[in-house]
Amino acid sequence: MRRIRLTIEYDGSGYAGFQAQPGEPTIQVALETAFDRLVSRGSRVQTAGRTDTGVHALAQVVAVDYEGRIPPERMRSALNAVLPDDISVRDARACPDGFDPRRQASSRTYEYRILNRRARSALLGGRVHHVGQDLDTAAMNAAAGELVGTHDFAGFVVETEEAVTRRVTNCACWREEDMVYVRISANAFAKRMVRRISGALIQVGLGRFSIDDFIALLNRNDYAPVAPSAPAAGLYLVGVEYGDRDDPFNSVGALSGALKEIDVN
Amino acid sequence: MRRIRLTIEYDGSGYAGFQAQPGEPTIQVALETAFDRLVSRGSRVQTAGRTDTGVHALAQVVAVDYEGRIPPERMRSALNAVLPDDISVRDARACPDGFDPRRQASSRTYEYRILNRRARSALLGGRVHHVGQDLDTAAMNAAAGELVGTHDFAGFVVETEEAVTRRVTNCACWREEDMVYVRISANAFAKRMVRRISGALIQVGLGRFSIDDFIALLNRNDYAPVAPSAPAAGLYLVGVEYGDRDDPFNSVGALSGALKEIDVN
Repeated sequence: MRRIRLTIEYDGSGYAGFQAQPGEPTIQVALETAFDRLVSRGSRVQTAGRTDTGVHALAQVVAVDYEGRIPPERMRSALNAVLPDDISVRDARACPDGFDPRRQASSRTYEYRILNRRARSALLGGRVHHVGQDLDTAAMNAAAGELVGTHDFAGFVVETEEAVTRRVTNCACWREEDMVYVRISANAFAKRMVRRISGALIQVGLGRFSIDDFIALLNRNDYAPVAPSAPAAGLYLVGVEYGDRDDPFNSVGALSGALKEIDVN
Repeated sequence: MRRIRLTIEYDGSGYAGFQAQPGEPTIQVALETAFDRLVSRGSRVQTAGRTDTGVHALAQVVAVDYEGRIPPERMRSALNAVLPDDISVRDARACPDGFDPRRQASSRTYEYRILNRRARSALLGGRVHHVGQDLDTAAMNAAAGELVGTHDFAGFVVETEEAVTRRVTNCACWREEDMVYVRISANAFAKRMVRRISGALIQVGLGRFSIDDFIALLNRNDYAPVAPSAPAAGLYLVGVEYGDRDDPFNSVGALSGALKEIDVN
């Protein structure tokens, strides 16, 4: 038995998220089916983090134990030959038996991508969230900065009365041409947390929420507005960080060129 | 009768190019069908330049005469409501009766987009040309520079014995993360010329053609190699220039942020 670590990219549009679910196409099932075809049957994929329905990934990390004649360093091309076109293995390498992609990850980074122009996109359907009205990214970035630190993020999580304590290490918002990006790194994220944070930041960018509204949401004040959830199509898991430990896609610093945009003005 | 000028974006994957052809889906037919539905029947679309099968556009320019109650400034949203998802009107404005999008254009700019990494893309299928081996973009850019000026480009055009004289005003190649771009502006282009230039530049980038081979191709020397055609999926018409004349997407300078890439290292 060998343990392999994969860095994978996927278009989440056609999948009911990462995790295996009866009767639904998921990334996990697609990966396990590819291992079944190539090497040993019954391989189980462990992931750094489950992504939700329709959410994309540029560098998800998974670990798999398998038996078979294909060495880890040849598994990238072998898997890419049998995986669907909307899943691609970017890196494959042997890893220690004890490598746990979820527990050993020190942080995760997500990016939310907004096409901010009047006309809808002809080329980026399902890849970005289109907002036709101008977004004030300076206000969005100011609000984003309020999230950095250890906070109870329950105001950005649906249906919970309990504390959702997470440590956000970085959160920024910026414009590049007609695209607006929100990028956030944290030790961990609760379900839909990034989409609700992005949805609230969009409200700030549209001038519908003030920074005080946003802070009230973070503080769970009684008068806080409800944070709408931004659509899954704009969300990308862009990295999982493991410090220096055998990390083929080391750190957020390497992510600076993440999807920029098809655009002309 | 009103004359309207449109700047349009399209994903060429599903179309047999711009120009109407019997029994084939084309951009022209899709636009004329949208005018038929919204305003007067029988409107004819004139274009700045025909794009080939599978070629994309970020800012194609067309002009159309129509009769009907919708004023030009409301045609962008009206057309986008009835056009297929893979065609989007970015700008619509009234223009003089005499406006000829082809004859008045001073130059056209195309961009060829190459994903240059080992693994195929899960997110950019049909949008880029994937080259798995490392491209030497310095060599490609040096070769690209040889094209600037007025030359006979017959060496980059299939099946012609005649001179194909064009004036290339700019041609450059550069890398951004895992993406490699070729951008070329000229007064006009012959059919497939940009794809053959891009194909030859890729051969230079792979070390299969020397700069001298490339120059021999440009000079149509007897010993010149054959220039392969790069696939349509990577090619974008990114702009049509009209000088200062009522130009909503004025000049190549505004194109610097054109599609950058979904990528992480």
